[in-house]
Amino acid sequence: MLVACFDMEGVFLPEIWIEVSKITGIKELALTTRDVQDYDELMLGRLRLLDQHGITIDKIQEVISTIKPVEGAREFLDWAKSQCQLIVLSDTFYEFAKPLMPALGWPTLFCHNLTLAPSGRIENYNIRIKDPKRRAVLSFRDLNFRTFACGDSYNDVSMIQEADHGCFFRAPENVLADYPNYSGYTSFDELREVLTGLISSNSELERV
Amino acid sequence: MLVACFDMEGVFLPEIWIEVSKITGIKELALTTRDVQDYDELMLGRLRLLDQHGITIDKIQEVISTIKPVEGAREFLDWAKSQCQLIVLSDTFYEFAKPLMPALGWPTLFCHNLTLAPSGRIENYNIRIKDPKRRAVLSFRDLNFRTFACGDSYNDVSMIQEADHGCFFRAPENVLADYPNYSGYTSFDELREVLTGLISSNSELERV
Repeated sequence: MLVACFDMEGVFLPEIWIEVSKITGIKELALTTRDVQDYDELMLGRLRLLDQHGITIDKIQEVISTIKPVEGAREFLDWAKSQCQLIVLSDTFYEFAKPLMPALGWPTLFCHNLTLAPSGRIENYNIRIKDPKRRAVLSFRDLNFRTFACGDSYNDVSMIQEADHGCFFRAPENVLADYPNYSGYTSFDELREVLTGLISSNSELERV
Repeated sequence: MLVACFDMEGVFLPEIWIEVSKITGIKELALTTRDVQDYDELMLGRLRLLDQHGITIDKIQEVISTIKPVEGAREFLDWAKSQCQLIVLSDTFYEFAKPLMPALGWPTLFCHNLTLAPSGRIENYNIRIKDPKRRAVLSFRDLNFRTFACGDSYNDVSMIQEADHGCFFRAPENVLADYPNYSGYTSFDELREVLTGLISSNSELERV
């Protein structure tokens, strides 16, 4: 009884802010935590930029809806959902992710949300919980599931470490170098093999 | 940020054991906890009956694959997945549920599993955890989601009580009479209204 947890951006989708920056031409929206280390400062800066350019939630959802999933992502998701229970754990916001969910087949998604004004202005962002990915994996373990976690970046490390099995997917060299105990894969075929191996391995659970 | 938890049999599907009993003609398979109060005795009896009739996992999956979802279930599930995060909490077993999942659109399912022999004989059943439905709802609350729970029977009461919002769906009169504080609905349109009301109500969460 396996719950497989996947990061979303960098695995199934390109990075949403970078795509929004490209499409809108607002270069500063491509800044990441590598450039601005304080996440709150980064996010409030992004929301200020949207405001300055008069970009409401409707406009940004229109932009986001043109983003395409990574090649092979949908096929992998459909396959994985037939093999185990799949949950997407992301640090994005429901209002940004929603236009992309049809193309991914509406997987279960745990992320954060936004505070919107009736005008559509994005007033603030709400982090659902601290360390949300690790906390979710821990919950599934507490519910007596075997867990698998996979992502591409530093914010995925704690869930990969918390899970019974974990790996990186298309992670940058520095991430792989910092966590050499975890394998890094680059194709969905490899992920299929990893999951198939986990599912076929002896998974009998004790009666609780 | 709402996680909606639904029971499966009685809500989206007919009762699997009763259908299997009808299709196979093995009347005793229709016995429920109303007839045999000890669940372990009931389940071991069912597995013994399957054995006596030479019904392996392949055969029972073939039988189960002919069961049709309740009318309107798939449309409701597709709609609900676009409105909130939906998890099906069931006391069935993954190996029984699997043939029915394509017709339901592969929702995330938390249930139990079976121990199978290489021959396909069902050797035993494994309860993943005690009070699994309530425990799952509690986990989602701990992850700072608002929660909604809905089912048709006594084994749904603890999750309905644990959730922020809960109701019965197509529950028998005795269940409704025993828990008069919870509404009982009978159509998917009513459930849509309930969910829509919850989602549109102010759901701003504090920063954690």
